[in-house]
Amino acid sequence: MIVTIIGTGLIGGSFALSLKDSGFASEIIGVDNSELHLKIALEKRIIDKALPLEEAIAKCNVVIIAIPVDSTVEIIPAVLDKVTNQTVIDVGSTKHAIFAIAKAHKNGSRFVATHPIWGTEYSGPDAAISGGMKNRITVICNPELSDPDAVATVETLYRSLGMRIVYQDAQSHDLHAAYVSHISHLTSFALALAVLDKEKEEEQIFQLAGGGFESTVRLAKSNPDTWVPIFKENRSNVLDVLNDQIHYLKQMKKLIEMEEYETLHKLLEQANDIKRILK
Amino acid sequence: MIVTIIGTGLIGGSFALSLKDSGFASEIIGVDNSELHLKIALEKRIIDKALPLEEAIAKCNVVIIAIPVDSTVEIIPAVLDKVTNQTVIDVGSTKHAIFAIAKAHKNGSRFVATHPIWGTEYSGPDAAISGGMKNRITVICNPELSDPDAVATVETLYRSLGMRIVYQDAQSHDLHAAYVSHISHLTSFALALAVLDKEKEEEQIFQLAGGGFESTVRLAKSNPDTWVPIFKENRSNVLDVLNDQIHYLKQMKKLIEMEEYETLHKLLEQANDIKRILK
Repeated sequence: MIVTIIGTGLIGGSFALSLKDSGFASEIIGVDNSELHLKIALEKRIIDKALPLEEAIAKCNVVIIAIPVDSTVEIIPAVLDKVTNQTVIDVGSTKHAIFAIAKAHKNGSRFVATHPIWGTEYSGPDAAISGGMKNRITVICNPELSDPDAVATVETLYRSLGMRIVYQDAQSHDLHAAYVSHISHLTSFALALAVLDKEKEEEQIFQLAGGGFESTVRLAKSNPDTWVPIFKENRSNVLDVLNDQIHYLKQMKKLIEMEEYETLHKLLEQANDIKRILK
Repeated sequence: MIVTIIGTGLIGGSFALSLKDSGFASEIIGVDNSELHLKIALEKRIIDKALPLEEAIAKCNVVIIAIPVDSTVEIIPAVLDKVTNQTVIDVGSTKHAIFAIAKAHKNGSRFVATHPIWGTEYSGPDAAISGGMKNRITVICNPELSDPDAVATVETLYRSLGMRIVYQDAQSHDLHAAYVSHISHLTSFALALAVLDKEKEEEQIFQLAGGGFESTVRLAKSNPDTWVPIFKENRSNVLDVLNDQIHYLKQMKKLIEMEEYETLHKLLEQANDIKRILK
């Protein structure tokens, strides 16, 4: 298959490398607004060639859109305008708005909304790696609303990467993603901000930062260009989970203020139930 | 050296195994209120023998107190009462109250307050491992207030484990620990509670949980018996950092509510400065 990748950053670049290595892609065409990213992607042989959007679509079998979710919403009509029998997917972290705009297009049945649950806190083509998605989960949204051959192509693509496919409707996806992914990023950003503030008074504050700090704060290195659009596109679910998070932190604060340690103990035992999920 | 370990759980058990392997300890004596922990520790050869507190102290060179920080505060006078030339350390996550009570004792100069920055989200002697502390940091508080030979023994002990020693006063330690460790646990507990609540409506919510979720939420598996006493002993610093954390989450919430995405972008860029610390 010839694969066009729109957006040659961390995610697009990792798809390019992985699909070449898996044998799914015989050729990778890169499309990017950033001349610098294209240059790096070519130099590092992440893509075989760079072409303008229209030409790239005409020459390929599969289009992967791997740009921030708000830009994905914007570009989808222009991409679908140029499609004949190509399969088009996006790989963004929110699905509802993307799915709605694609399905409203006359070529919408060629589009399959997907979300591979993978990423790192780094960004750009230099951060692209091969094989990182192996054994991870990928979501395919509402496959019944796409052409069966397009869905089959996408399933083959993800299986070639060793990913496990989960089918969800776009709306449930966005709710679930807010609770198990988006809020983790917001709390990480907030933790980083709190401790960076304190560093202004206490220069040595990071001297004691251990494994717990690193694991809860590393997501604060994530790219705002990726994440602000995710919070924007998933605004109402993100506000809900932020409310829940603030509620529980306030409850803990109150219990510590009032020195109600037995109730706090019960609350933390309740949180321990997460052991059911995280082995 | 003969080492008595009070508390044969995750931390005490890991000290026992590591100090035997490093050659620092020729014999490990275990003291524990829990008959079950002692039985497991003996069966798994984590300790060589179990003795009552008084006898254990009389027969050893070094005492390591590895029990929850509030119990440490309580037991210190009874331990120091029985000390002649033994060196006594604690390994708890808060230092100010422990340090104050030890230094008020007539044998207080035999006591060295320490905090090895290491742990896992598991607990009990079954979770004990050897060598986990290698290359980690350990804090020794106010060494000038302990006997030089006691400090030297403790330095030798930690160096035998491959740890890097940092010297801090007890009060700074507690402030720093609140910001780079204690708050990470509180936010993890809160994240777990929020998503466990949502699971009651959305059974499949954990289907999408990826690496970011796991790393920010794994601390919610931590033992409330350990952590409630830490929040209690470090109450005022923990309340400060909880306030900071709630402040930033509320600010993010407000920016998303008002759709002020440019300001949100700037805030997240500010958080990205954590890259200076976490490489």
